[in-house]
Amino acid sequence: MTRGERGLFGLATHIGIIGSSGHYHYALAGEREIEDAVICAVAPGSADEDMSRLTAALSAASVSPKQYDDYREMLDREDLNVVAVNPQFHLNSEVTTEALSRAIPVLCEKPLAIDLESLDRVRQAQLQSKAGLGMMLALRYDARFYTARQLVASGAIGEPALGYSQKSYKLGTRPPFYCTRETFGGLIPWIGIHAIDWFRWISGIEYTAVIGHHANVHAPQYGEMEDTAACLFELANGGSAVMSFDYLRPAGAETHGDDRLRLIGSAGCLDISGAGLTLTDPDGTRSIDPVSPPHGLLADFAMSLADKDHRCLISTEDALRVTEISLLAREAADNGCRVLLSQTGGR
Amino acid sequence: MTRGERGLFGLATHIGIIGSSGHYHYALAGEREIEDAVICAVAPGSADEDMSRLTAALSAASVSPKQYDDYREMLDREDLNVVAVNPQFHLNSEVTTEALSRAIPVLCEKPLAIDLESLDRVRQAQLQSKAGLGMMLALRYDARFYTARQLVASGAIGEPALGYSQKSYKLGTRPPFYCTRETFGGLIPWIGIHAIDWFRWISGIEYTAVIGHHANVHAPQYGEMEDTAACLFELANGGSAVMSFDYLRPAGAETHGDDRLRLIGSAGCLDISGAGLTLTDPDGTRSIDPVSPPHGLLADFAMSLADKDHRCLISTEDALRVTEISLLAREAADNGCRVLLSQTGGR
Repeated sequence: MTRGERGLFGLATHIGIIGSSGHYHYALAGEREIEDAVICAVAPGSADEDMSRLTAALSAASVSPKQYDDYREMLDREDLNVVAVNPQFHLNSEVTTEALSRAIPVLCEKPLAIDLESLDRVRQAQLQSKAGLGMMLALRYDARFYTARQLVASGAIGEPALGYSQKSYKLGTRPPFYCTRETFGGLIPWIGIHAIDWFRWISGIEYTAVIGHHANVHAPQYGEMEDTAACLFELANGGSAVMSFDYLRPAGAETHGDDRLRLIGSAGCLDISGAGLTLTDPDGTRSIDPVSPPHGLLADFAMSLADKDHRCLISTEDALRVTEISLLAREAADNGCRVLLSQTGGR
Repeated sequence: MTRGERGLFGLATHIGIIGSSGHYHYALAGEREIEDAVICAVAPGSADEDMSRLTAALSAASVSPKQYDDYREMLDREDLNVVAVNPQFHLNSEVTTEALSRAIPVLCEKPLAIDLESLDRVRQAQLQSKAGLGMMLALRYDARFYTARQLVASGAIGEPALGYSQKSYKLGTRPPFYCTRETFGGLIPWIGIHAIDWFRWISGIEYTAVIGHHANVHAPQYGEMEDTAACLFELANGGSAVMSFDYLRPAGAETHGDDRLRLIGSAGCLDISGAGLTLTDPDGTRSIDPVSPPHGLLADFAMSLADKDHRCLISTEDALRVTEISLLAREAADNGCRVLLSQTGGR
């Protein structure tokens, strides 16, 4: 990777943003991190999308991209090096497929798709174009989770065998598209996907089967949106992972989210809770100072596009696979059945 | 309840102990707590049972009960007010049934049985004799869990909808009977039963179905004994509970066990971890000082025998039901299937 006066790609890095319903702020952070990067164009993912939050964020950052009404027109006209995709969640796959079919690299909000059929279209578009495809699995860039991954890879807890992962958020006020499965996709692929991904990534152990349960227990105003979900994954080495996801975090809690991980193995146990990361091993329990990864999410992805030797923390293969696993976990919860997860990718 | 010079039963409380493979120390604690109580007789649950730890504990407490080789002879000859039953786990049901059939009240180690058929025999013996039947679900007497129950019952977190429970222990060195399902019974009914019980008791919400997974991943020397297990329970209100149980706690950890509970509801969240109990609600997060229950496990049970108006923390119905649920959870894990849990007791 070379960074210099001419930026990452040997010229100014042109970033586009499609949609404002997800985590567009990773694109803003990327623009700040990558020298000579510029957010040059934005468009809604659909005509009815509320773009006001993105517009305000761009304005606050003194960024003035060209505005398009139709993202397809933007993709056709602009010479983009990377496009950040975060429309209403049900449009992730369609927008991503459109960009990939034009050979434009995509950093997509998770999940890549809210059904297996459109996920297959994304997979095919990526295979055909060979354009880079990343996903906003931001917890991999969280210093606690990144450091946990390094610790486990270094053998700090031996071979992992059991764990718990938690995602809990304040509900606050959500846009209307959260109210139907058709547009929201479900709590497991929207929220749970982070925990499903980090557990697999940090442990290094594959899932072989999943069972789940989800419901809207206390948020009737959000219709079909689940406010609670739980999964049990069987691991390839015989172990297990349990997870819980919810929108029940009290409004009075200090932080918006409450992410937790406990991972125990043959030689130790890791815990992430609050700001802390602790390790228990034969020498006792101690706090570990989390170390941040060298690059942010969009910059890391952009670097992997510019330099084939640079490995992005999230591979295209992982992005596709973890989306698929999340959709199969949702299927397990919908049907009250155990779903086998092949380890070959695809199905 | 009256306690006085003549003790709980209007005369000295005669306690017997059968077996030394479980938590006989609750009988010792009961003897200390109940005025005029005396451990007057002990016997092994089987001829091959190692009684040395119990013998040493009795000696250290300067207690000198009569020693029997055959517990049936002891039950026939002694005039016992209560017998504490903790033989090798597969004998819990048989010993309990023998005592109940003589109308002797039993405080049994958990689980009451390691298969549903012998659990039914315990149930029938209790129905016929009407003798009291309690179980060593000691976590109900732990100040953190007891206080959590009071908080939830008082509405502190609204209606519970999701949670996680954890039991984790150091493996250390276990007796040979842990090595086979036939004598050990399984990690879920031996260890998991505590969490299965406390979650149901504290939340006040019934389980409707369970799925599970268990395996021996890192303890091959213990043969059929699982060292990891996980359960997912569906709750009657649509919510979920996930649990993990293990024998993987590192030898260097500060405490032998690591019990945790997280329970979130419509108006707040409770957390038990380490020595602490915390409550998060619209006013923020704060520590709660745990309050101990007024009586210990054996004393509480003995008081319920002496005074029909005294309610033991663990009812006979709960002891039978939570054993049944644990055995069905083990069945779910054995077969990789979802097991429905009727809410009527029995099956």
